[in-house]
Amino acid sequence: MQWTRKHLLGLEELSAAEIQHVFETADRFKEVSTRSIKKVPALQGRTVVNMFYESSTRTNLSFQLAARRLSADTLAFSKQGTSVSKGETLVDTARNIEAMGVDIMVLRHQASGAPWLLAANVKCSVVNAGDGQHEHPTQGLLDLYTIREVKGRIEGLKVAIVGDIAHSRVARSNIWGLTKLGAKVMVVGPSTLIPTGIERMGVEVCTDMDRAIRECDVLNMLRIQFERQSGEHPFPSIREYIHLFGLTAARLRQGRPDLMVMHPGPVNRGIEISPDVADGPQSVILRQVANGLSVRMAVLYLVAGVE
Amino acid sequence: MQWTRKHLLGLEELSAAEIQHVFETADRFKEVSTRSIKKVPALQGRTVVNMFYESSTRTNLSFQLAARRLSADTLAFSKQGTSVSKGETLVDTARNIEAMGVDIMVLRHQASGAPWLLAANVKCSVVNAGDGQHEHPTQGLLDLYTIREVKGRIEGLKVAIVGDIAHSRVARSNIWGLTKLGAKVMVVGPSTLIPTGIERMGVEVCTDMDRAIRECDVLNMLRIQFERQSGEHPFPSIREYIHLFGLTAARLRQGRPDLMVMHPGPVNRGIEISPDVADGPQSVILRQVANGLSVRMAVLYLVAGVE
Amino acid sequence: MQWTRKHLLGLEELSAAEIQHVFETADRFKEVSTRSIKKVPALQGRTVVNMFYESSTRTNLSFQLAARRLSADTLAFSKQGTSVSKGETLVDTARNIEAMGVDIMVLRHQASGAPWLLAANVKCSVVNAGDGQHEHPTQGLLDLYTIREVKGRIEGLKVAIVGDIAHSRVARSNIWGLTKLGAKVMVVGPSTLIPTGIERMGVEVCTDMDRAIRECDVLNMLRIQFERQSGEHPFPSIREYIHLFGLTAARLRQGRPDLMVMHPGPVNRGIEISPDVADGPQSVILRQVANGLSVRMAVLYLVAGVE
Repeated sequence: MQWTRKHLLGLEELSAAEIQHVFETADRFKEVSTRSIKKVPALQGRTVVNMFYESSTRTNLSFQLAARRLSADTLAFSKQGTSVSKGETLVDTARNIEAMGVDIMVLRHQASGAPWLLAANVKCSVVNAGDGQHEHPTQGLLDLYTIREVKGRIEGLKVAIVGDIAHSRVARSNIWGLTKLGAKVMVVGPSTLIPTGIERMGVEVCTDMDRAIRECDVLNMLRIQFERQSGEHPFPSIREYIHLFGLTAARLRQGRPDLMVMHPGPVNRGIEISPDVADGPQSVILRQVANGLSVRMAVLYLVAGVE
Repeated sequence: MQWTRKHLLGLEELSAAEIQHVFETADRFKEVSTRSIKKVPALQGRTVVNMFYESSTRTNLSFQLAARRLSADTLAFSKQGTSVSKGETLVDTARNIEAMGVDIMVLRHQASGAPWLLAANVKCSVVNAGDGQHEHPTQGLLDLYTIREVKGRIEGLKVAIVGDIAHSRVARSNIWGLTKLGAKVMVVGPSTLIPTGIERMGVEVCTDMDRAIRECDVLNMLRIQFERQSGEHPFPSIREYIHLFGLTAARLRQGRPDLMVMHPGPVNRGIEISPDVADGPQSVILRQVANGLSVRMAVLYLVAGVE
Repeated sequence: MQWTRKHLLGLEELSAAEIQHVFETADRFKEVSTRSIKKVPALQGRTVVNMFYESSTRTNLSFQLAARRLSADTLAFSKQGTSVSKGETLVDTARNIEAMGVDIMVLRHQASGAPWLLAANVKCSVVNAGDGQHEHPTQGLLDLYTIREVKGRIEGLKVAIVGDIAHSRVARSNIWGLTKLGAKVMVVGPSTLIPTGIERMGVEVCTDMDRAIRECDVLNMLRIQFERQSGEHPFPSIREYIHLFGLTAARLRQGRPDLMVMHPGPVNRGIEISPDVADGPQSVILRQVANGLSVRMAVLYLVAGVE
């Protein structure tokens, strides 16, 4: 197929064919990361700017490394120490950076929809690296890519997404991507953390972790983001959460032997997942991180439109 | 002409011929930024360090991008997270960085005169990226370059600089540059924000914004820096400032149709300038940003002395 | 000799032959820093990540510049603005970064032993850039390298390390390195700042600064780190410290004319060392910084194992 998108904003708007095209492009770049000289000249002379208004280690580094492996120049700024503190609007900041001749902006922002606002106001490409509680499309893509790699397919699999569904952009992007590619999705968690009406996204709601483990091929354990809990979706006590939803080795044994365990990181060891499971043979957590690089190389390459 | 300066510290010390030479060099680099591969090997193997002791988005990114497009290596540090917090003097920090074999230091510092102190104590080149309320020479150069580009000349034009003249390094660098190149300069603002005796710099003082609009070819609207107001130059209320000096579309219509509107950014929309004017056809704000890159490439190239 | 180490963690574990091999490698790289194009392609396509959990200007910049001169890609993050604030463990952060295909991690951490923990848990190379009050091996190596360069040898020299020995990782790495290479080491300071039993490291304890000056070939003046003083090793008043141990020109004249004065920086001018001595002919402080770059290039090159 022919890739025509200038931006990667969310998985909601991508077709199944477009997602597959990202995967096939990532397959080609994956090989680059196995070389001792991990570089291709695909984006030489192009500039990628990381605009991170929320803190991040892995996503920020992953995008920077992906851009460098494509031989792009990278610049990064975070909320601290910039004119953001002088009260400039996001669009004004972006238009100014664009005027310097930047090719791709990678934006992480606490406001849902911020990347769409940017894309509507700049001529360069915009990649969403996480917007509020809305989407985190490259995380969704790398999760799907990892399932496809490990299981050989996505269609027909049953995938449980476990945790604070209500506040999770990772959950949202996974749901869009998985359902488009024909997986069955179950969202699992305390009912207070599952938004009402989420069934309309084509998912099954389950509040019984043990049943989810028995029925599914893949468990995607979300990070419990204590810092994001609000009054609207009250969080049970941590002790109660661990008791009901924490993934322990004992609990995992109820599932099939090839039940695949995922986590977007950073892991709260001993809370949503026990250390032996996080580091165990069914966990693909570090494989997700490694694949994230290939997927982000593919995304940057495709939106740059250099072909 | 032959460029002989090792540093770019202020426009006060440059001759008209030197300013013109920067412009002609910037003309050559401007073309580079229109290529899809925006790089020339002019400063390959050289190192440019951004030392920013005050927060900045655009100037910091602009200098880094300019250095990268010349194929220099760039390093940047800001006040946070450095041994500045351990109480080391600026000169000691600089001598240490110089000992690592750095070629150009780009310094932003809250103390007026800091770049001169540095230049007197290191052997590498120093570029002033803004010192206190003193000078911001690359901003002055890019403002003049943009006027020259849009109007075809600088000599004989009448340029109004509007706002808090007393605290503005942008105003100061513009005044030096414009008067050297033969423009007439009018400083416009409440009398409390105009330093007494500024007429000695060869400028006219005006406290009537409407008269300035009617008489001038160019309006350079300064950012109102609320954070810098001190007791010595009391600021009128914001509402009163907007009423007397804010540039609105209605007010702008009093001027000639080709009256050119500039702003160094970041813009306080609705305060010194209304959004419709900032984004309107007479505004060259983003053109200033784009030209900033070419001018900074020229400055880095010239002070590096690689010719 | 054949270099076989994948990590550089401390000087305690290096043999004299290994230290000499670093020096010989640094000799070769030193020439690179004198070129106008200061680059060799030795680590092209490799990635070096600076993980700095404590603030630093010079060590952080020095490692980044060293990596760039070897043509490696560099990424840096500091404690602020990363998922460290989300409570992730150091090992999890490191494993994630490693999964992105990083070749060398340069770690500065407040916990003694942190680099060993990392080395035991990742497959890439780890370089210790300072761990707690334990070791700072590249500082030790660059100090020794500078002595060897200035004095022509290390064996048989008498070196005084002056200051807060108890809290100094620089002191510890210097002691290991100097004693291995056959120097005599004297630690000098108020008895409250010298750990009991340090004689077992093969050093002489001296609380008389004037005697140290008269007897030694080299003085390595430690930075007094006011921020690290704890109740266990009470610090005398600053005035008393300057009186008893501060290195002034008058005091220095008691020593031999070629007595060499070192300091790891950043300097507290007028406290452990007076400005005229710090900038005087016997001081090699900036030479240490310059040599630091060559030594760090050697270390990165050797641990990368590209030969």
